[in-house]
Amino acid sequence: MENAQDPKSFYIARQERVGKLIQAAGLDYLALNPGPSLVYLTGLHFHLSERPTVALFQPDAPLILVLPELEKQKIIELPYVLQAFTYGDNPQTWKEAFRKAAHAAGLDGKKVGVEPGRMRFLELRLLESAAHQAQLVSAQEPLTALRMQKDAGEVAAMRKAVAIAQEAFLATIPMIKPGVSERQIASELTVHLLRSGSQSDLPFAPIVSTGSNSPNPHATPSERRVATGDLLVIDWGAAWQGYVSDLTRTLAIGQIEPEFERIYQAVLEANAAGRRAARPGIPAGEVDHAARKVIDEAGYGQYFTHRVGHGIGMEGHEEPYMFGENQLILKPGMAFTIEPGIYLPGRGGVRIEDNVVITETGSECLSDLRRELWNV
Amino acid sequence: MENAQDPKSFYIARQERVGKLIQAAGLDYLALNPGPSLVYLTGLHFHLSERPTVALFQPDAPLILVLPELEKQKIIELPYVLQAFTYGDNPQTWKEAFRKAAHAAGLDGKKVGVEPGRMRFLELRLLESAAHQAQLVSAQEPLTALRMQKDAGEVAAMRKAVAIAQEAFLATIPMIKPGVSERQIASELTVHLLRSGSQSDLPFAPIVSTGSNSPNPHATPSERRVATGDLLVIDWGAAWQGYVSDLTRTLAIGQIEPEFERIYQAVLEANAAGRRAARPGIPAGEVDHAARKVIDEAGYGQYFTHRVGHGIGMEGHEEPYMFGENQLILKPGMAFTIEPGIYLPGRGGVRIEDNVVITETGSECLSDLRRELWNV
Repeated sequence: MENAQDPKSFYIARQERVGKLIQAAGLDYLALNPGPSLVYLTGLHFHLSERPTVALFQPDAPLILVLPELEKQKIIELPYVLQAFTYGDNPQTWKEAFRKAAHAAGLDGKKVGVEPGRMRFLELRLLESAAHQAQLVSAQEPLTALRMQKDAGEVAAMRKAVAIAQEAFLATIPMIKPGVSERQIASELTVHLLRSGSQSDLPFAPIVSTGSNSPNPHATPSERRVATGDLLVIDWGAAWQGYVSDLTRTLAIGQIEPEFERIYQAVLEANAAGRRAARPGIPAGEVDHAARKVIDEAGYGQYFTHRVGHGIGMEGHEEPYMFGENQLILKPGMAFTIEPGIYLPGRGGVRIEDNVVITETGSECLSDLRRELWNV
Repeated sequence: MENAQDPKSFYIARQERVGKLIQAAGLDYLALNPGPSLVYLTGLHFHLSERPTVALFQPDAPLILVLPELEKQKIIELPYVLQAFTYGDNPQTWKEAFRKAAHAAGLDGKKVGVEPGRMRFLELRLLESAAHQAQLVSAQEPLTALRMQKDAGEVAAMRKAVAIAQEAFLATIPMIKPGVSERQIASELTVHLLRSGSQSDLPFAPIVSTGSNSPNPHATPSERRVATGDLLVIDWGAAWQGYVSDLTRTLAIGQIEPEFERIYQAVLEANAAGRRAARPGIPAGEVDHAARKVIDEAGYGQYFTHRVGHGIGMEGHEEPYMFGENQLILKPGMAFTIEPGIYLPGRGGVRIEDNVVITETGSECLSDLRRELWNV
């Protein structure tokens, strides 16, 4: 949490912890570019831009940072030691800053872990050219271990991010009627997310999909207008103090066909089965199995085309991923979505998504927004 | 433009053009993951998520795409030929999909260009393991050539994105007074951006920085409250049909100290000098020089800590970058920001940012929002 009472010991403790995780993973260094892991470890917010910014973590050594000159304001008065190497606006000067940082770190010949979903070709090649003999490998495992089990402060922030999202959804409902477009609903919902207190950098732009768009789990809101008989899927989230929520509800516009009612009931029961299954000590895959079984038995297994959920915290999608084969054992503090769905191509889709956190004895569902079919 | 009247010939023409650029750059393939370049060439919107999605472009050959099973809805009824390889939710299955795609493409031993600021370690290692002898290199040059000169339709979308941003700013002004926080102003501005018609995926979350935060060009809005005597920097943008705007205005809260007035005037004149300089046939660096000269002569050169601007279009930051050493010759259709600033550390900062497009004879400034000091 960024508002921790003693930020000094707070970030130093996290940096010490990542040092141990780096060592245990057989890595000499961890190289991070801007993003949640860097914020988690340092409190430093940078844009992931065309300008390469990289932090080098080494066990029991001060943090080293390569950054643009114009970001220097962000590193004054930090509660920990940091050695900075800056460059100007000419991209020709990037290499030299990376060379100096790699030299200061003693990076050559070392094993350097990176975040696979965030480290880019740009920074990778700069690191490689600054330390020819360095070996750049995935640090997914130590980074997952670092952030996967949330502490009480993190869970409190997620609970608030859920509450904001729920409030915004309820405020948006009255404008939903035949004739309004997906884009209009998405905009109105975004407005209410901000009014309800979400950070303005939402975890993702709301997905609003109606009618034949609704079976597309990752649709982009279009000018398509809501019509009687449609299923309408709304997938949205809020951010609070760096932590996010991610919910989905499906609405019926007026009278819907009987099969839509049936798939809604199946998804509703699958969601409940997933939530009931979530507890410490079982493999993540069991939660997927529990929800999928309900949909399989209803005869719609082939139309549930994705895993039952994904981890959530500082990112909208993070470990643990809740797919059937995942043998990862759930532990207290792990947080994830439960979001079964049924998608009838070209016709209509249903998804119901909640956010849960594993506790010592079971799980807590952070979201309590009505799950029965919303008929508007 | 996505709303082109004949999407078939539209995307096919762009794909043919990139094929020629790939060849001219000595590349066999272009590998893109989700982002503006992929949208520009295919109209396909995917989230850049933990799931690797990669498109392989080859001159005179059909497009090849590796994507998650659950995104398949997006590739039905495309106006061009596409060969798709999908995988399920178990990350163990990613490699096989990439192996099949690389085999179908004949990628082994080939020279494959990637987008340095977007291609990640995740996809890079998957491509490398699928085609051991492939050589992955930067495709920055052909990608820059592809998108840098905007056509009339693109400029029209940018003009609209600027108009939306200006309208939203004017609607936000009345709530700015001593006591409101940076975060409240950022939220209100975001609300107005959406109400004015911006896409809900803004190009960036508004930057609102007041008082001693204002000299930080990339500040994150905080709980700090606006106070009399502050300089208040607001940097924001809108998105319309995939194209963005990026403006900055600086406000004075009540009476400000005389030096703040002086730096405001210097930045105002530097902005005008930059706009006057912008025309076809000159190096990009000349625009930077023209603006910087004004600030140097006012005695504040050391406090103008960044380039005068950056290209803008589908991305908030793209080529051409407007730094002094840039010898790139400006051509009609190139669009960029002009945003000189003076930042007095710990005291106050000023930035005034407009968006311009090079024309056949000079340049067009897309923004016409009042530039004289806003005193609230």
